[in-house]
Amino acid sequence: MMGRGLLGIEDLERADIETILETAERMQEVGRRDVKKVPTLRGRTIVNLFFEPSTRTRTSFEIAGKRLSADVVNFTPASSSLTKAETILDTAKNLDAMAPDAVVVRHAVAGVPKRIADELGAPVINAGDGAHEHPTQALLDLLTVREEKGRIDGLTVTIIGDVAHSRVARSDIYAFRKMGAEVRLAAPPTMLPADVESLGVKGFTSLREAIDGADVVMALRIQFERLAGALFPSVREYSATFGVDRAKLRYAKDDAIVMHPGPVNRGVELSHDLADHRPSVILDQVRNGVAIRMAVLYLLAGRTRVEREEE
Amino acid sequence: MMGRGLLGIEDLERADIETILETAERMQEVGRRDVKKVPTLRGRTIVNLFFEPSTRTRTSFEIAGKRLSADVVNFTPASSSLTKAETILDTAKNLDAMAPDAVVVRHAVAGVPKRIADELGAPVINAGDGAHEHPTQALLDLLTVREEKGRIDGLTVTIIGDVAHSRVARSDIYAFRKMGAEVRLAAPPTMLPADVESLGVKGFTSLREAIDGADVVMALRIQFERLAGALFPSVREYSATFGVDRAKLRYAKDDAIVMHPGPVNRGVELSHDLADHRPSVILDQVRNGVAIRMAVLYLLAGRTRVEREEE
Amino acid sequence: MMGRGLLGIEDLERADIETILETAERMQEVGRRDVKKVPTLRGRTIVNLFFEPSTRTRTSFEIAGKRLSADVVNFTPASSSLTKAETILDTAKNLDAMAPDAVVVRHAVAGVPKRIADELGAPVINAGDGAHEHPTQALLDLLTVREEKGRIDGLTVTIIGDVAHSRVARSDIYAFRKMGAEVRLAAPPTMLPADVESLGVKGFTSLREAIDGADVVMALRIQFERLAGALFPSVREYSATFGVDRAKLRYAKDDAIVMHPGPVNRGVELSHDLADHRPSVILDQVRNGVAIRMAVLYLLAGRTRVEREEE
Repeated sequence: MMGRGLLGIEDLERADIETILETAERMQEVGRRDVKKVPTLRGRTIVNLFFEPSTRTRTSFEIAGKRLSADVVNFTPASSSLTKAETILDTAKNLDAMAPDAVVVRHAVAGVPKRIADELGAPVINAGDGAHEHPTQALLDLLTVREEKGRIDGLTVTIIGDVAHSRVARSDIYAFRKMGAEVRLAAPPTMLPADVESLGVKGFTSLREAIDGADVVMALRIQFERLAGALFPSVREYSATFGVDRAKLRYAKDDAIVMHPGPVNRGVELSHDLADHRPSVILDQVRNGVAIRMAVLYLLAGRTRVEREEE
Repeated sequence: MMGRGLLGIEDLERADIETILETAERMQEVGRRDVKKVPTLRGRTIVNLFFEPSTRTRTSFEIAGKRLSADVVNFTPASSSLTKAETILDTAKNLDAMAPDAVVVRHAVAGVPKRIADELGAPVINAGDGAHEHPTQALLDLLTVREEKGRIDGLTVTIIGDVAHSRVARSDIYAFRKMGAEVRLAAPPTMLPADVESLGVKGFTSLREAIDGADVVMALRIQFERLAGALFPSVREYSATFGVDRAKLRYAKDDAIVMHPGPVNRGVELSHDLADHRPSVILDQVRNGVAIRMAVLYLLAGRTRVEREEE
Repeated sequence: MMGRGLLGIEDLERADIETILETAERMQEVGRRDVKKVPTLRGRTIVNLFFEPSTRTRTSFEIAGKRLSADVVNFTPASSSLTKAETILDTAKNLDAMAPDAVVVRHAVAGVPKRIADELGAPVINAGDGAHEHPTQALLDLLTVREEKGRIDGLTVTIIGDVAHSRVARSDIYAFRKMGAEVRLAAPPTMLPADVESLGVKGFTSLREAIDGADVVMALRIQFERLAGALFPSVREYSATFGVDRAKLRYAKDDAIVMHPGPVNRGVELSHDLADHRPSVILDQVRNGVAIRMAVLYLLAGRTRVEREEE
């Protein structure tokens, strides 16, 4: 199983992913009820330890925890205390002394959730670390594709954008590959990762080729705040070449769906039209995010301390 | 009934207001218990979506939701993402995908809660939008007056201050008018709204005339941060002319009460003495705020999804 | 008993402290369960009113309240409204009108929790006020020492650092003295309080003398942000003279324990080694903080309104 936490998709076996998806499918049903609450995690404490601000992901975890009847505590370290590794570990150990049953960690630096997990008794869930991984995002993407297509095995998934600097892309590559999909990347050369081959995926600098016959077209968010002008000449050029609209979508399969981790820069990664209408499934991704996080919290925080120690 | 939410008092029928007040009167009783909790909204999710900071109103809604056993999530968008209409609607739709049962919205721009309500499946409660409306404030004012006077019909209510720029005043004018009270406004000419006649109220530039025989004297907060020096010559002059103290209160009825939406600028809108002592009922207003918000949340978030769709 | 709240250790009788410690010992057991929740404070509202930011202490109170099934509301006043005494009391009275069962207050100015308590119906718990007191910190220190040593009476406790400006030190001096321990202070002359004698403790400027035969060695945090260069020549010199490491610890008893209220400046107040390893018990202090806060909340917020008024 997931061992001591969920740090990345890279560490998971296909069977682990199947377990999470099946659990999430049961959790989806809870979200459709009027009384959206099950007593599963009553008396368990979940700590949201977000060193990077993130209202959406934090809220998704908070709602997930509360629907499982857990106590959810948001721990937002003062920005002054975020720089030193020593301080981060001290903060984590202090939290651990308060006996949480799971700690959800987001940090701007890759590897921090792992470092924290090494020190803690409680399982750690990576909610995004630098350009490394964002595993619950990839899991909710899998859940959404399976909901739409009935399967993942054998599908073609095209990921478009700044793959080299995207934790979402990295987690999605691992996730879709492990579940048997073909993954293609489409980006300007400066945005393609150096290790395309070893990831078992194909890189394209032509969107048309990358999208040809795809079942799933996934556009990444352009991080304007991170990018220097160097990576691509202009937003207009990026949008013309790699922005997805209905014209470009014609090269994909007729029933292809469009995904985006949000928030969308409308008219850049996706046309205004696709940002709001089918075949894009962006709000389904958000909805499934709560189900996935309920599943992960249930599987990790629901175990007793004895079970945890016996593993 | 209130249809898809509570966006303003202007949209309500008198019967709607009666229903809310009667429900709130039952909720007042819960606030007096040692165990201040009823299971009514167990498993419902309420989101506080405050684009403008407001500790008091947000806390009042949070306490109200928790006393009804709802899960309350505070969603405070990063200030960087608050400017564009597109972003606001995206944020709201994302939240909606997490299946909340009510969304409480505050925003500095009039009309934003309505725009959000148009997009969402969940009912929206306006917690203050620009200079437009602040309906739960007016409802708690009604509840407080009814508690004090036993009725609203036939009373004379004088609202003093910057009425033209006050969402509290606008909601109170609608509320007290609909419930059969006479409403008078007292302000320097620059602070009287242009549409006094069409609102069915009388405007006065003499406090003494406006207050003559009043049952309720309601002072508005001066928004120093908003006002240029142009609106009135000086705080001292405003206070001398429109500040309420015991001397001026003598023109009102003997049993008149004094109200203020808080926080009071002591010595400006109200004398220090009146800010703290009867006949002012400021803390009763705050106490009744929780009861009103419990009533509104109960009426809106307590319906099942089927009931909501059938309306 | 504790009367209308917990404002400082100075006000407590030894019997009060015994009651809190015994209650906390029962609460420790709850923290070791898988279902860390008891229904004791169901339907009670606890407000965290933190005028000074403090993630650790606030989180500890929040977890404590939730484990007792209370509704916990974090009320963080906007920094703009924190300066005037009038505003602070208004904020507190407004909160009080929402019928909380306990209000936890932290403020940078000594005496503010007392002023607030004078105005409120709800019991107030001081979570740190200026350089005055931090009573729950001292209580968790007592609990930790009793857990380690089986008793407090007759022990020798040495407190090292900027005692004169430390609310932790002040509360600990009262607490350990009342429980029958001998308390010694070790600091540069500028950091020793003027009223050493009247506090019933001994001041030393030699760490070696102060630590000689001690059972408990407690290092205070150096507040770099508060200190001008005047108080001590340099961090290096402070660390060389008053920083605790294994060499200096040899003068204490063989089974002496090392305490620190956290967060530790490693290599300054404590050596890196002692910051992380026995005989330091820093994380036990954190763990016991939750138990102490559960005990205090239970004793104060658990009483009915009638019981409170009859006292």
